[in-house]
Amino acid sequence: MTNETLDLAQQLIALRSVTPEDNGCQQILAQRLEKIGFHIENMRFGKVDNLWARRGEASPVLCFAGHTDVVPTGPLDQWNSDPFVPSIRDGKLFGRGAADMKASLAAFVTAIEAFIADHAAHKGSIALLITSDEEGPAVDGTVKVVETLKARNELLDYCIVGEPTCTHQLGDTIKNGRRGSLSGNLTIKGIQGHIAYPHLAKNPIHIAAPAITELAQMQWDEGNEYFPPTTWHISNINGGTGATNIIPGLVNMLFNFRFSTASTVESLQTKVHETLDKHQLNYDLGWELSGKPFLTSDAELASAMREAITQVTHIAPQLSTSGGTSDGRFIADICRQVVEFGPCNETIHKLNEHVNVTDIDRLSKIYQLTMEKLLT
Amino acid sequence: MTNETLDLAQQLIALRSVTPEDNGCQQILAQRLEKIGFHIENMRFGKVDNLWARRGEASPVLCFAGHTDVVPTGPLDQWNSDPFVPSIRDGKLFGRGAADMKASLAAFVTAIEAFIADHAAHKGSIALLITSDEEGPAVDGTVKVVETLKARNELLDYCIVGEPTCTHQLGDTIKNGRRGSLSGNLTIKGIQGHIAYPHLAKNPIHIAAPAITELAQMQWDEGNEYFPPTTWHISNINGGTGATNIIPGLVNMLFNFRFSTASTVESLQTKVHETLDKHQLNYDLGWELSGKPFLTSDAELASAMREAITQVTHIAPQLSTSGGTSDGRFIADICRQVVEFGPCNETIHKLNEHVNVTDIDRLSKIYQLTMEKLLT
Ligand SMILES: [Zn+2]
Ligand SMILES: [Zn+2]
Repeated sequence: MTNETLDLAQQLIALRSVTPEDNGCQQILAQRLEKIGFHIENMRFGKVDNLWARRGEASPVLCFAGHTDVVPTGPLDQWNSDPFVPSIRDGKLFGRGAADMKASLAAFVTAIEAFIADHAAHKGSIALLITSDEEGPAVDGTVKVVETLKARNELLDYCIVGEPTCTHQLGDTIKNGRRGSLSGNLTIKGIQGHIAYPHLAKNPIHIAAPAITELAQMQWDEGNEYFPPTTWHISNINGGTGATNIIPGLVNMLFNFRFSTASTVESLQTKVHETLDKHQLNYDLGWELSGKPFLTSDAELASAMREAITQVTHIAPQLSTSGGTSDGRFIADICRQVVEFGPCNETIHKLNEHVNVTDIDRLSKIYQLTMEKLLT
Repeated sequence: MTNETLDLAQQLIALRSVTPEDNGCQQILAQRLEKIGFHIENMRFGKVDNLWARRGEASPVLCFAGHTDVVPTGPLDQWNSDPFVPSIRDGKLFGRGAADMKASLAAFVTAIEAFIADHAAHKGSIALLITSDEEGPAVDGTVKVVETLKARNELLDYCIVGEPTCTHQLGDTIKNGRRGSLSGNLTIKGIQGHIAYPHLAKNPIHIAAPAITELAQMQWDEGNEYFPPTTWHISNINGGTGATNIIPGLVNMLFNFRFSTASTVESLQTKVHETLDKHQLNYDLGWELSGKPFLTSDAELASAMREAITQVTHIAPQLSTSGGTSDGRFIADICRQVVEFGPCNETIHKLNEHVNVTDIDRLSKIYQLTMEKLLT
């Protein structure tokens, strides 16, 4: 048993599944799950392979979620071993996707196998929601599977997303929410003119500056128990055509909120519009909501995971909502409680990505114990 | 005599001399001048034809300066007649360069011809400095001719630049100076980072905004008797790579001062650096001086022109320093008194450029009378 999770993780790493390619990973998972009574559905949307697997019809539904795609390797000559040839050195398993998140996928499968070996007649249902475009545009992956499930009213109770959440050692961090992401495309309009006749022009860069100053210094909210305060940042600003003797007619900015449940989409939009209006700006502003914030209270699922983690690692995990967005935001739409837990994320998306070999088995054990607590 | 200036202006307009092409214009001028005793020097620098013509060795030297090149036509279908086929309608001569500045060139020549017919043994010298890249980069034109003259210590006393200076009617405006132009290339440095982890980054757009606000509101000087206050404008701003989830590491700005003799290059540079430093910004700033301001006091030349204008037009011209830079800034380096006077500038660089037919002859007469006052 001891090496089964490691073996499966290595098998998956060996499959070159650079986003949005799955390259056979889901088939391996599906074959293992089918043998232990899962009903398999391959849901392909656009060019993206997704897997929905479920064992049982009853409630509660406990779902494991993740992705088989990996980010590109970067310069190969800076890897100490081939990123698609799993390689163990110094107690670490190296390879692209080792930590994000093929070790988690392997741990899902071996944990479920071990759990079912002991509890073939478990309570509720076990499910897997696996996509191959989490690292890409995330358009034809989890979001489409969730839409499909929602359309047939197949709702979830608990979901464990296997993203690498730990920072220093396995077990230190569970994510029980993520901030939302709201983007704006802002064009401030002035009046174009020759720089020698500025009284005939209105410089949009100059009139934008006081408003940018105010927005950059705004306290949007104070956060709350689970979330840090909302942040606002301009990612891009462009004004002028390159000509050095022309005051441009427009300046364009792209900005982004990472926002907590202490604000709403509407409250943030209103504050931006109020600030721009207060500065008497003439502007166009388009909004795009990439994801609402989600937050899972410290209830059954978080509590079960927390206990399982402490049993295996002897440390007490903290609940956190920091970091970027994840597919958890989509799943939260059809699932009462969503948490994320996986290995250390120190090397993800980097050269020489790796995971501690001992953590792979311990991760499987944590997932298994969580099932014991929720489904027996 | 009456139609000579008009004829020559038409001849010049018919020669398609889009900057930096001279296309034979200078040869026509040179042939006319050679006949009345001018010494001709063709000074070609790079791809630019320049003409230096002089009659006499003595002081004072009165120089007429101008350019044969014209700006491109823009959409031909929006011209009411071919821009390179001079066409008279409603008492106006239409054509690209009609106002800027082939009417002035024609008036220079016929004025000099008439003056010499009456005063073959005039005082001092008469000169012409004609370039074909005033409308272009202005690198191989007047500036190089001036360098050449300076190197051989051939200095000027009076220079009349024939740029179109009038706004409503012929005679309303003499320019007796121009503001200087000082440009800056400013890069403000932050720390690049992921927009989800803003505490690890430093957004250069955000930290630049208060400094831009302060610079945009700065009173650089109050101008003086001849100049409006100095102005500062950002022409271009660029930050970000297009990625919407990255706080950029840098933001770049191009800015430009149009400055009066009430400030110096050093005083403006110092104020900008002080403001950036006060905001504790980390930045790179490169400076480029395109032209120092020049100012010709209301002495012999301006006074002679003013009288000549009033004699011909019966109005009193105002002295002005407004508008963009001109080649006057270069000539001022070797010439004690530089003024600019030419026809109305309402249609220059525009579609259907034109000049009043009656103004062409009157302009010639004004130049002729000015010579009478200074060289007899
Ligand atoms: Zn991941
Ligand atoms: Zn001109």
